[in-house]
Amino acid sequence: MRTPQTVGILGGMGPAAGADFVRLFVEACAVLLRARGQAVGDQAFPEHWLAQVPVPDRSEAIESAQLGAHQPLEPMLQALGRLAALGSRAVAIACNTAHAWHETLQQRFPQIEVLHVAREVAAHLAARGVQGAALMATEGTYRIGLYEQAMARAGIACHLPREDERRLLMRGIYEGVKAGDRALARSCFSRVALQLAQRHGPVAIVMGCTEIPLGLQGADEVERLDLLDPAQVLASALASRAYHLGAAP
Amino acid sequence: MRTPQTVGILGGMGPAAGADFVRLFVEACAVLLRARGQAVGDQAFPEHWLAQVPVPDRSEAIESAQLGAHQPLEPMLQALGRLAALGSRAVAIACNTAHAWHETLQQRFPQIEVLHVAREVAAHLAARGVQGAALMATEGTYRIGLYEQAMARAGIACHLPREDERRLLMRGIYEGVKAGDRALARSCFSRVALQLAQRHGPVAIVMGCTEIPLGLQGADEVERLDLLDPAQVLASALASRAYHLGAAP
Repeated sequence: MRTPQTVGILGGMGPAAGADFVRLFVEACAVLLRARGQAVGDQAFPEHWLAQVPVPDRSEAIESAQLGAHQPLEPMLQALGRLAALGSRAVAIACNTAHAWHETLQQRFPQIEVLHVAREVAAHLAARGVQGAALMATEGTYRIGLYEQAMARAGIACHLPREDERRLLMRGIYEGVKAGDRALARSCFSRVALQLAQRHGPVAIVMGCTEIPLGLQGADEVERLDLLDPAQVLASALASRAYHLGAAP
Repeated sequence: MRTPQTVGILGGMGPAAGADFVRLFVEACAVLLRARGQAVGDQAFPEHWLAQVPVPDRSEAIESAQLGAHQPLEPMLQALGRLAALGSRAVAIACNTAHAWHETLQQRFPQIEVLHVAREVAAHLAARGVQGAALMATEGTYRIGLYEQAMARAGIACHLPREDERRLLMRGIYEGVKAGDRALARSCFSRVALQLAQRHGPVAIVMGCTEIPLGLQGADEVERLDLLDPAQVLASALASRAYHLGAAP
């Protein structure tokens, strides 16, 4: 068996989502090991590093578009540089909105692969034969058209929530998960998910912000929906890279 | 508010436990922030790094006592050195058995504080007024007397499982959690926990291996026991250090 590659996770956006991403990555590695008939044990996992650094609010920075201290790029570049110095060959960003800076991050560190969550999700949906998906995300992610572009390229229709539903999502993310109020998060997110499913029929619903799956954990009311966690798709993609299996989609 | 200190987590032993430790640390930070009346948001968390590196089996190394490639010390020293280089002022080791090498790790990096899980747990139990506790752990942890010594110093009696119960624990750890079979882990761990509670009465039961709480998650049969997760105590201690609140016990 070839020694797995070292990989990195750029987190802190928020920290709970970063921690959960490591859990998903470890699970994805175990799935890959089993699929290849290899024993799952501590020493079979790839070396991986998680950077949880304070990064100014991503959605706010996209809204205000002012340069300076509030820009999230600087701390992300620093953390990515350190992940590269630690030997990471591929890095996943555990925040959807932060992908607004993906191109710059990738350009500055051409020696490593910076995975792109929306491209991985679009490839995953296309492989499943999905033709349409609804998107739950932050204002920042809608503003930059992160998933819309990646899905359009893969021939998948992207349905967006209404103004009032977007406000509910932002409330669940900021006053809910990020502030530690999981009950509020759950009620905001499940309401929007159910409305999207009612409006668009049996489409896949992409939980395009790492805080949303955390708020919906164990929520029976959305159990029958086809909810897709991009963090899970991204974690699998990172595991593939670590075991030399992956190629960019 | 003083800028929190950067802290590190030495994980990979196993990787699932390392990921779970970050979750516990993030939760402990949120608890501290709330207790101080400060808003919980992404930017309020301390910078922290998780190193998940392959480390040879700790219990095996303690049993065989042979030097060389199988020694876990070398990769732990390398990872700790990199966590120090990243700016960590305090580091927690997310593995009980690995504390066999605590003294050497601390001596090599005197500029940082390497937290000691058993000392933190003993101080926590003493603060609660507990006089006796039962210990679920690996053979390696029993062999080095990790908790027995720390508890003796704190005036707490430490009750150990019988030979056959120890074998059950090792099975739950290696064939259960580390190999991804959570059902097996749960049955092994809960049997020993219930037997300890029956034999020693209403004592605290210390889950002195990071894999044990993972295997007992959501196990109703042990719900009434006074189970203590050292990882939770250690995560709180690390959060205290990050916010300049902690002192070694």
